[in-house]
Amino acid sequence: MGVTLGALAAQIGAELQGGAPDTVVHAVATLQNAGPGEISFLANKGYRRFLAQTRAAAVIVAPEHAAECPVAALVSGNPYASYARAAALIVPRPPPRSGVHPGAVLEADCEVHDSAWIGPHCIIESGVVIEAGVQLAGGCFVGTGSRIGAHSRLAANVVICHGVTIGQRVSIAPGAVIGGDGFGMANDNGRWLDVPQLGGVRIGDDAEIGANTTIDRGALEDTVLEEGVRLDNQIQVAHNVFIGAHTAIAGCVGISGSARIGRHCMIGGGAGIVGHLEIADGVIITGMTMVTKSITRPGIYSSGVPAQDNESWNRNYARFRQLDRMARRLRALELRLGSGNENN
Amino acid sequence: MGVTLGALAAQIGAELQGGAPDTVVHAVATLQNAGPGEISFLANKGYRRFLAQTRAAAVIVAPEHAAECPVAALVSGNPYASYARAAALIVPRPPPRSGVHPGAVLEADCEVHDSAWIGPHCIIESGVVIEAGVQLAGGCFVGTGSRIGAHSRLAANVVICHGVTIGQRVSIAPGAVIGGDGFGMANDNGRWLDVPQLGGVRIGDDAEIGANTTIDRGALEDTVLEEGVRLDNQIQVAHNVFIGAHTAIAGCVGISGSARIGRHCMIGGGAGIVGHLEIADGVIITGMTMVTKSITRPGIYSSGVPAQDNESWNRNYARFRQLDRMARRLRALELRLGSGNENN
Amino acid sequence: MGVTLGALAAQIGAELQGGAPDTVVHAVATLQNAGPGEISFLANKGYRRFLAQTRAAAVIVAPEHAAECPVAALVSGNPYASYARAAALIVPRPPPRSGVHPGAVLEADCEVHDSAWIGPHCIIESGVVIEAGVQLAGGCFVGTGSRIGAHSRLAANVVICHGVTIGQRVSIAPGAVIGGDGFGMANDNGRWLDVPQLGGVRIGDDAEIGANTTIDRGALEDTVLEEGVRLDNQIQVAHNVFIGAHTAIAGCVGISGSARIGRHCMIGGGAGIVGHLEIADGVIITGMTMVTKSITRPGIYSSGVPAQDNESWNRNYARFRQLDRMARRLRALELRLGSGNENN
Repeated sequence: MGVTLGALAAQIGAELQGGAPDTVVHAVATLQNAGPGEISFLANKGYRRFLAQTRAAAVIVAPEHAAECPVAALVSGNPYASYARAAALIVPRPPPRSGVHPGAVLEADCEVHDSAWIGPHCIIESGVVIEAGVQLAGGCFVGTGSRIGAHSRLAANVVICHGVTIGQRVSIAPGAVIGGDGFGMANDNGRWLDVPQLGGVRIGDDAEIGANTTIDRGALEDTVLEEGVRLDNQIQVAHNVFIGAHTAIAGCVGISGSARIGRHCMIGGGAGIVGHLEIADGVIITGMTMVTKSITRPGIYSSGVPAQDNESWNRNYARFRQLDRMARRLRALELRLGSGNENN
Repeated sequence: MGVTLGALAAQIGAELQGGAPDTVVHAVATLQNAGPGEISFLANKGYRRFLAQTRAAAVIVAPEHAAECPVAALVSGNPYASYARAAALIVPRPPPRSGVHPGAVLEADCEVHDSAWIGPHCIIESGVVIEAGVQLAGGCFVGTGSRIGAHSRLAANVVICHGVTIGQRVSIAPGAVIGGDGFGMANDNGRWLDVPQLGGVRIGDDAEIGANTTIDRGALEDTVLEEGVRLDNQIQVAHNVFIGAHTAIAGCVGISGSARIGRHCMIGGGAGIVGHLEIADGVIITGMTMVTKSITRPGIYSSGVPAQDNESWNRNYARFRQLDRMARRLRALELRLGSGNENN
Repeated sequence: MGVTLGALAAQIGAELQGGAPDTVVHAVATLQNAGPGEISFLANKGYRRFLAQTRAAAVIVAPEHAAECPVAALVSGNPYASYARAAALIVPRPPPRSGVHPGAVLEADCEVHDSAWIGPHCIIESGVVIEAGVQLAGGCFVGTGSRIGAHSRLAANVVICHGVTIGQRVSIAPGAVIGGDGFGMANDNGRWLDVPQLGGVRIGDDAEIGANTTIDRGALEDTVLEEGVRLDNQIQVAHNVFIGAHTAIAGCVGISGSARIGRHCMIGGGAGIVGHLEIADGVIITGMTMVTKSITRPGIYSSGVPAQDNESWNRNYARFRQLDRMARRLRALELRLGSGNENN
């Protein structure tokens, strides 16, 4: 499937500079590997060194790089977003299927729209509603009373437990589990009693959930992801967490129960969020950081510890274990010398 | 389904104060949202501010909060445990199913109790024993020779490999994998040779395993979880780990091979436990802590690093890289001044 | 199935000392539990204390431990590798199956070798190639156009998305997901646009992938694992990561996009690797370390923080938050005293 550069520029919000509008492109590739008929893009400055040698038909670039583009430039104020649109146009998704595979099992009283596709070995329990255009690849489970909004796509072996509501155009990667019981238990003389997990999960429109990510149902009220939330793989979202719209969370993050995360946040891989706290809108948490208290102002927050060579690390860490004592010794010197009037 | 407050009080070990014993309740809800016919509870002091305004029919409270409860109080020395019992009574689990769905595959020589339920698309290999009342939701796999104890429940897409023994009333959440091969390999001139993983997994009665959690089989002897162990989601338990009874482990924890964890421990989310060590009974490990040595005494242990604003973090961490040098400089000052006779 | 010690010694590269070559052994066990007819091994010095009392028929030991072995010794320069070979001989894997279970679903145009086994409830999409001897346990999904190399084994509920190439003799544990979409998105005025993930995944011969591990497909080019790579459980490998041959990665590690990891590396559990960096061959990363910059030389690198008792930890961490200030105060004292001519 080909698109002309002229049509492409119009559709992705870019201006074509230095190329023929009727040149047809049919594929996308990296700056290094693109050839005739292929477009590429420059969004991460680390790859700028490859621009001069590219053989792409055209490159999507920011205005400041247009001059050094050796081929046709599609100039955009947001080259990565323009590239995302271009790639979706040039390499369209396979067309949706419709129907119910004979190897799927549908219980009574579930409602599947004619335009939806239920793949082999899926299980749709009673009271489920599957809206228009939904795509369920094989081996998915949708529990009693759940609803999957129009045009959402569940990859293979996704599990949606009972009482879960998924919005429209949501994408869920293989092996994700939405609506498992939260980790709720009461200690009764040293033994754990289950606390019934009676809430559900609500996921807003256009959200994306990564592979093998888990989102627990609420204890009494729902666990909520607002529209446009992006979760990467291997994330754990505990019961009654709230994640605001358009927040993006990288892989291996764990979020404890009843944490409330704002909108437009970005959380780096491997971070941990303690329960029962609030994170304001627009907060950025860097990788492997542990958030233990509410964060009330936008900004960047960190505690991930960068690697050192092991010998230096061990030497410094040994001192860390003495740090309180070091601080007292420093204070003693200051007092003796009559300096250090800070209140330590 | 309704229960009277009088009956409820008797069954959950609470004393009814200030309410009519024949008031019927039929649901549970939060302090903020409960209305007539619904009970609530106060177990986490962070929610005490909602008590005065609650419209619940009754609230389960500790004795010290009974006086300020504006409605009927169900007074309990352990309100959360009493709530757990109340919720289980008022909102009973759906009744168990029995039988074998025609879409399940049972190999020869497996033994399934008449009162058990084998859901659609399950696979039960030869020699498996499924005891009374067991509930297997769809898409579960139970490998050769494994045994599932009475009234245990496997949610959708759980995998039990061969030679695994599950106790009674065990609950396993979707996507969990019990009995995968341990990470056993020998380096042979730079290449890895598999070390056959010949042990199994034994899980005690009343244990719970979270969604997408993985528990590897032992190398020679079994990986063991004793009764009442609670594992949250996304946990990795390596080969030959032993977890003592009633220990609770939060999400995203990794436990390396042959670690031996005591009874009644609590391990916070994202913690890591190095292999071949022992942790005593009653130990508490806080979130994102790394345990590298045996812990021989009960207590609380930590190394999770709380977040700072990124600028402070970078400044302090830069100094951390100089910490050994700082310690030497401090020592030099002390020596010069004739103080600091500690042995540093 | 029995093997004589003489035959075993020859096949595992060991020298039999102090035992009859025609003694037959038929099982393997630990030093503590082995009895007549069973062999054991000593590879980890922590277990040396059990050697003197062993009742094994023979023990695989390093030369330096042969003298203290109370029973027949199978002396090897690499006892663990010799044990791995011995265990594989004495306890052979169940023979492979062949055929297609009638409960599997094969789309048109897929090619399954006669000697391969496709278990119940598997789904093989169009254009898939399954080579000789491949074993797919139940519930596996193999997406359009993917290829599984000869004698590879997929455990239950493995998902291979479209366009993935798996080498020969690869082993994939239950619940692993290979080829899910990478976490690619462009921010467009506060909303996230999907960046189509158009690359695939290529996994080399003899690799092993752990349970519930996820490996994302590339954005434009492929995510690559070379031959002999070993991944434990619960690992996240992002789009366009490259992992060199024979590198071993322990559980719960997260690797961000486009990271390039060398050959013969070892990465400890819970580590995190930031994206767009390179790690040289032969690097060792210890547990829970965060790698934020390229590592250009072999060696050991660390930042995992060992646990302290909680009181010490809190006291020392409080000082860490003042560390930059402490460093400035130390410098002030040095300047005042005319010492400390280092450039701090």
